Amino acid sequence: MSINIGVIGAGRIGKLHAEVLALRTPEANVSAIADINVAAARETAAKLGIPKATDDYREIIADPNIHAVAICSSTDTHSQIIIEAAQAGKHIFCEKPIDLNLAKIDAALSAVEQAGVKLQIGFNRRFDPNFRQMKQVIETGGIGDPNIIRITSRDPGPPPIEYIKVSGGIFKDMAIHDFDMIRFLMASPVVDVFARGSVLVDPAIGAAGDIDTAVTTLRFESGALGIIENSRRAVYGYDQRVEVFGSGGAISVENNTPYRATLSDASGIHAPKPLHFFIERYMDAYIEEMRQFIDAVVNDKPVPVTGADGRAPLVMAEAAWKSVREGRLVRLDEIE
Amino acid sequence: MSINIGVIGAGRIGKLHAEVLALRTPEANVSAIADINVAAARETAAKLGIPKATDDYREIIADPNIHAVAICSSTDTHSQIIIEAAQAGKHIFCEKPIDLNLAKIDAALSAVEQAGVKLQIGFNRRFDPNFRQMKQVIETGGIGDPNIIRITSRDPGPPPIEYIKVSGGIFKDMAIHDFDMIRFLMASPVVDVFARGSVLVDPAIGAAGDIDTAVTTLRFESGALGIIENSRRAVYGYDQRVEVFGSGGAISVENNTPYRATLSDASGIHAPKPLHFFIERYMDAYIEEMRQFIDAVVNDKPVPVTGADGRAPLVMAEAAWKSVREGRLVRLDEIE
Amino acid sequence: MSINIGVIGAGRIGKLHAEVLALRTPEANVSAIADINVAAARETAAKLGIPKATDDYREIIADPNIHAVAICSSTDTHSQIIIEAAQAGKHIFCEKPIDLNLAKIDAALSAVEQAGVKLQIGFNRRFDPNFRQMKQVIETGGIGDPNIIRITSRDPGPPPIEYIKVSGGIFKDMAIHDFDMIRFLMASPVVDVFARGSVLVDPAIGAAGDIDTAVTTLRFESGALGIIENSRRAVYGYDQRVEVFGSGGAISVENNTPYRATLSDASGIHAPKPLHFFIERYMDAYIEEMRQFIDAVVNDKPVPVTGADGRAPLVMAEAAWKSVREGRLVRLDEIE
Amino acid sequence: MSINIGVIGAGRIGKLHAEVLALRTPEANVSAIADINVAAARETAAKLGIPKATDDYREIIADPNIHAVAICSSTDTHSQIIIEAAQAGKHIFCEKPIDLNLAKIDAALSAVEQAGVKLQIGFNRRFDPNFRQMKQVIETGGIGDPNIIRITSRDPGPPPIEYIKVSGGIFKDMAIHDFDMIRFLMASPVVDVFARGSVLVDPAIGAAGDIDTAVTTLRFESGALGIIENSRRAVYGYDQRVEVFGSGGAISVENNTPYRATLSDASGIHAPKPLHFFIERYMDAYIEEMRQFIDAVVNDKPVPVTGADGRAPLVMAEAAWKSVREGRLVRLDEIE
Repeated sequence: MSINIGVIGAGRIGKLHAEVLALRTPEANVSAIADINVAAARETAAKLGIPKATDDYREIIADPNIHAVAICSSTDTHSQIIIEAAQAGKHIFCEKPIDLNLAKIDAALSAVEQAGVKLQIGFNRRFDPNFRQMKQVIETGGIGDPNIIRITSRDPGPPPIEYIKVSGGIFKDMAIHDFDMIRFLMASPVVDVFARGSVLVDPAIGAAGDIDTAVTTLRFESGALGIIENSRRAVYGYDQRVEVFGSGGAISVENNTPYRATLSDASGIHAPKPLHFFIERYMDAYIEEMRQFIDAVVNDKPVPVTGADGRAPLVMAEAAWKSVREGRLVRLDEIE
Repeated sequence: MSINIGVIGAGRIGKLHAEVLALRTPEANVSAIADINVAAARETAAKLGIPKATDDYREIIADPNIHAVAICSSTDTHSQIIIEAAQAGKHIFCEKPIDLNLAKIDAALSAVEQAGVKLQIGFNRRFDPNFRQMKQVIETGGIGDPNIIRITSRDPGPPPIEYIKVSGGIFKDMAIHDFDMIRFLMASPVVDVFARGSVLVDPAIGAAGDIDTAVTTLRFESGALGIIENSRRAVYGYDQRVEVFGSGGAISVENNTPYRATLSDASGIHAPKPLHFFIERYMDAYIEEMRQFIDAVVNDKPVPVTGADGRAPLVMAEAAWKSVREGRLVRLDEIE
Repeated sequence: MSINIGVIGAGRIGKLHAEVLALRTPEANVSAIADINVAAARETAAKLGIPKATDDYREIIADPNIHAVAICSSTDTHSQIIIEAAQAGKHIFCEKPIDLNLAKIDAALSAVEQAGVKLQIGFNRRFDPNFRQMKQVIETGGIGDPNIIRITSRDPGPPPIEYIKVSGGIFKDMAIHDFDMIRFLMASPVVDVFARGSVLVDPAIGAAGDIDTAVTTLRFESGALGIIENSRRAVYGYDQRVEVFGSGGAISVENNTPYRATLSDASGIHAPKPLHFFIERYMDAYIEEMRQFIDAVVNDKPVPVTGADGRAPLVMAEAAWKSVREGRLVRLDEIE
Repeated sequence: MSINIGVIGAGRIGKLHAEVLALRTPEANVSAIADINVAAARETAAKLGIPKATDDYREIIADPNIHAVAICSSTDTHSQIIIEAAQAGKHIFCEKPIDLNLAKIDAALSAVEQAGVKLQIGFNRRFDPNFRQMKQVIETGGIGDPNIIRITSRDPGPPPIEYIKVSGGIFKDMAIHDFDMIRFLMASPVVDVFARGSVLVDPAIGAAGDIDTAVTTLRFESGALGIIENSRRAVYGYDQRVEVFGSGGAISVENNTPYRATLSDASGIHAPKPLHFFIERYMDAYIEEMRQFIDAVVNDKPVPVTGADGRAPLVMAEAAWKSVREGRLVRLDEIE
């Protein structure tokens, strides 16, 4: 059995998911793609042999032959499309974040619950082979009880200022993945957050009301401690490392590189930089998350990343922002 | 424009190429698959949506709608199929080695030349991102003049003895890839070979008239020296490393691993073993070699690995075998 | 010219400094060694050929032929001995910390200033070849402007509870080195501290009023951010790493190991654990700090680690402790 | 108890041994140092507080208060001094090689045997912590039965041509250490040698009748195979690596570096070059070999590197040279 799926959004991530669905997930057919920029939708449709391209996502939601949608449009449209798709009985894959506003998230999750459809959130990093191995080692006791988790998460460069302005800020836009990774790897819930931020990459980011460099610490119910380092720019590339230290050892994930060739010359020993950015670094993860979504729909299994998993990091992001603004420790229950 | 291709052979490597052609090379359609074990052909056809499965490769060669064939059958059938396919005007992708016998290779290459079709040999390692980077660094002078090239090539375990018996021996079956890699990376031709062999993995391999451990040295016309280390069994997995040392530096390629997670515990620091075997290690290379073959056919470009490239390593393998048997240095011009 | 030096304290670190002075610093003669446990003093004296062993450090201070003292006694005796030695005109090398109490530190520094003698504090890590290289790269602009500094500092195991009780707590006893390292590597002064602590290693440490796991964050005047991770127990050994991330790159120091032999076997790839503890890890640094102290005395140069350098990390440690107790950000100027 | 030792030769290696004996081996007193360049002897004597400097080594041999000598003069003087020292009843530490001529070696070893004195040869690499760990892993079965040993041995740059001319050639001068390492690590004796050489570093080396690049292969009685790669110049520094591959795994020793600081910047990830040359790379080994020699003399234990250990690599070097000249496999029993 296979399912028909409609892709909503034909930007960078929409194109990526469309290609994964068209070429790499044999049980899914991409029946249609929508984008308010219909030319973009048409281009992707033509390239991948998708039969329908439209500027109106409601044509996809209204199509009785379509079983599921992949929502890849801009964040501010997510919650509304989720509600409409759920009410039409479609299963839903939605890119992160669900929304920047918790009330809107709750409305969307409520619609999903009432409709009884599946909703999977696009926290792709959970499907990265490195982090899956890390989780398995932790779960099977390979490092004993986790004591300290540390995430280093740096982008190769900042997005355009226009994007920054509507992004919800570094915590909701960028650290959101790290908050999710913390929840993915650690069995114990986060109690509180203390975050610090600076503008060290580009003053324009500060002028837009955001920060570009952040250090966030967290406490878990177990007493374990967490650290997240974020920067909008690492000149050597996309820096995505995690280390978990426990009573029985430590496990650490290093960056992936495009090849493993080391050059030794008169100036030193030189290794390649990390894979450039999220598309390159997490391609395997994008494929795997979609395979698992399709598998969940086709075989009626639980999705691996739920709506609640999509909501929780937003709470942490709000707590982090509040902590930066107020210069104090913020408990998560102040937000929720 | 796209082309129709027939796959001949539905064993492990045939299935792999069929899947790459069906799912990963948009400009190719797999029209048919043949195997003397027709059940195997049918299974792959069903899985990949290939319209025709047969036990007779001649049906593929006779099909006027098929433009090219991928020969993945047993080595002893390669030269005959090449000749027939060439005479039928098909472009040909053929797995290595072309044949174990130089005269048969020459007959096949002659048929290809007369027919004016394209022939690409499946030396997949040339398309590995690591070795491509290595070649690029060497060609652009990153290590100056190459002085010593060293290849470490060890399989995780030996094939069945029945396979060993018809394999042509360690040099034609296994080191053939390393002889090709030497030619790929070094601009200067090989002049002579001195090889040593031992039976250290399994006495049954010796009883079958083969060796399982070999050290081969070579001299290039430039005066540079080469080393190949082979073993049929490395308990830690598929060991595929190359180092080229030159007047201006050295470049070395390490093994790829399934993830980059390091575990530190009371017994030490532990990293993952190499990717298990050739399918895992060279999957990207298999895709890339087929993309380039399809591109060569569709756009009438030269193939990246020619029939002559397929012949030369056989000459080196014969020289190595002769060197082991006679305990002496063997010049390549003794063989050719 | 060479100088005569007296060593006060013949415990582990006293013995180490006595040996370095006796065998590795040709311009210094060890004239005497004192310890309230006179047997310990005698044993070291006999082993190293030191002419005098005593249970009374005042004999050393009163000796007009002795030019300098190395204070390696218990922390609670440091400030008093500094004052007496300074008043006697001796140059002083003093182990860290100067004292656990800022008022006592100030009294000692004042005595040193009035006497015009040299005082060097034993922050040995500044002399480690790794961290010296790191500092040089930072100072010469190799990573641009520092944005984030992160120190991972974990002991192989906790000291005895009796020691914990008088240690002044994890920040004054253990993180003190990390606070100094932060000051050594970063040109910008620290403004404030937020620290978190947990008891995850041994409940007895909590019962003694201390913590065994800590995460401290700091802000620098430049806007850069700092992180220190501390644990009293890493089962894989002494974990001493620093990473500084800047606008132009990042530099990171890994652990030293006793050898660089990697074992590959059926269970994985295995590398050696870090050098066991501070004696092994920082032996080169202990030698170099003493050489520089002797050089400063013999050739009347400034010492590389001053009394003010000894005081500042105590202020940071007090701020960190206050932050943990009060669950809030603490500015350094609240302490000073 | 301690012994008096005389150092013969005050060149680079003589100074090094004199310093190790004076400062790092408490049970040895350096009573005298001799060099035909008496100024060099005097300079070292002054620096280290050695009471006597002379231009005549016979004054050392004649001194009844001297128990042992360290022979660090030019190679062509070794055998004669060994004979005289042995006849005078001195224990002997002699730098490698004993001599370039097997007959002279045999005469020297015979004198030592008749005198019943101890003779230790300066194969310092056996005392390197990396190679000692490697040997221990092999001996305790950590890699099963050794199948292939590979040594990469490259100098940062060639010695002066005048030195090359009297050096005995690359095998006796440079690879001699690698031949010894092979014997140190492998339990099975070498049966035969096939070596290849080229002149790729400097034509003047070829004009002097030597080669500067060599690849040597060996067979052990066990059937295991060996490889040695030599080059007189590696622009990235002193390259000293060994890998032993066996039925149960592999162990490999990487280069030591002056520090472990990795720089990541826009051009890549950069690690330090190896420690520059033998003095830096093997300082710990020089100290340890001398400690063991002194221990053997003081406590009448067997020396760790015997005269026979000094002779055997010369046989291998002669076989290698013969193999290069004659282009054929040479059995060691052709030489011995």
